[in-house]
Amino acid sequence: MPKTSALAPAASFSTLERDAVYKAIFTRRDVRDQFLPDPVPDDVLRRLLEAAHHAPSVGFLQPWNFITIRSQAVRDRVASAFGRANDEAAAMFPEERQSAYKSLKLEGIRKAPLNICVTCDRDRGGAVVLGRTHNASMDLYSTVCAVQNLWLAARAEGIGMGWVSIFRDADLKAILGIPERIEIVAYLCLGFVDELYERPELEVKGWNRRLPLDELIFEEKWRGGN
Amino acid sequence: MPKTSALAPAASFSTLERDAVYKAIFTRRDVRDQFLPDPVPDDVLRRLLEAAHHAPSVGFLQPWNFITIRSQAVRDRVASAFGRANDEAAAMFPEERQSAYKSLKLEGIRKAPLNICVTCDRDRGGAVVLGRTHNASMDLYSTVCAVQNLWLAARAEGIGMGWVSIFRDADLKAILGIPERIEIVAYLCLGFVDELYERPELEVKGWNRRLPLDELIFEEKWRGGN
Repeated sequence: MPKTSALAPAASFSTLERDAVYKAIFTRRDVRDQFLPDPVPDDVLRRLLEAAHHAPSVGFLQPWNFITIRSQAVRDRVASAFGRANDEAAAMFPEERQSAYKSLKLEGIRKAPLNICVTCDRDRGGAVVLGRTHNASMDLYSTVCAVQNLWLAARAEGIGMGWVSIFRDADLKAILGIPERIEIVAYLCLGFVDELYERPELEVKGWNRRLPLDELIFEEKWRGGN
Repeated sequence: MPKTSALAPAASFSTLERDAVYKAIFTRRDVRDQFLPDPVPDDVLRRLLEAAHHAPSVGFLQPWNFITIRSQAVRDRVASAFGRANDEAAAMFPEERQSAYKSLKLEGIRKAPLNICVTCDRDRGGAVVLGRTHNASMDLYSTVCAVQNLWLAARAEGIGMGWVSIFRDADLKAILGIPERIEIVAYLCLGFVDELYERPELEVKGWNRRLPLDELIFEEKWRGGN
């Protein structure tokens, strides 16, 4: 008999458990260079993907796929695709920011022993999906929730993760054999870490500063200009 | 003197701490009806918003704003906007699914004592943003990561959360005074809970089933058809 699964008392969190969730949230970093070469064991990878798979999804659609990449040859090709796109990206910045931009290491594709490409199958639920009727992006957003679950689970496992977004989609699709109709949501680099930045790397390196949270919170309605 | 903040030993997670992170991930639910009326204290709300604010963001852009809504009058107007959109949504489903759709409670706008609208300011970083040069959606995705952080922190605080996506944007913008150029990413309902579904509500109610994770994982490249 399948377990009847309905409402049950909500498990409470001890202070230590609650603090552990915040610890994952506040010490999570977008890692580009601190990856150790040790392989990520299969059972750990499985836990990370289970965490991703238990993200919320619009209409319980679970629109994601996960392509795990360990092959050096594949990662070399992906790194080359990044390099081409990053040269294009650098050229888009105003002259005075270009050298700062070029000094940043923005990916760990070759250094991280494990890469994961996370995709969204926009046709999985058919044309009409519960909760996507008025916001066509909800399936993409569900997939992003899976990425963030994976990121926090990785942090708790001692694994750093970085999200690389500087690619031409067509390049990645050609390398990974991803069909045209499938949307790439994230390309992730993962590996064990023994050091992390205490604050976000782009803050430490002076690219941007932390915004004061108070200025981002409005009560009851939007405040300020258009 | 500001603290110099650079690389430091990565804090490790004890087994109990790691399990707490997974507990948040695996017992998180999209709550629509189990909200208790107790107000969410300001210090708890602050922790939730700090968690959201510490999400990863492309180029360290922090493109989000949070509109907190407790007013009954405002929530009544939002609930009406949901109702109109949900009638439209129901009509989009094939005849045989319409009664099932209509039987689902898909929001807790009035029942949850706290609502939060999460928005993305797409102009915050100027036209050229590090990491958004080749994927224009990255600022929206950063904002979704903030939502997922908030969701998991809420779970650890004993607070249930539901994401309501069935609105016409123009309705929500009119009610909350949100400028045209600002993108609404999520409308969230929050409140303490003492009961939760053991499995996703849409699975329990037979709307959709859990997909086997093995079928969603590919190694080295996409597998299967186009």
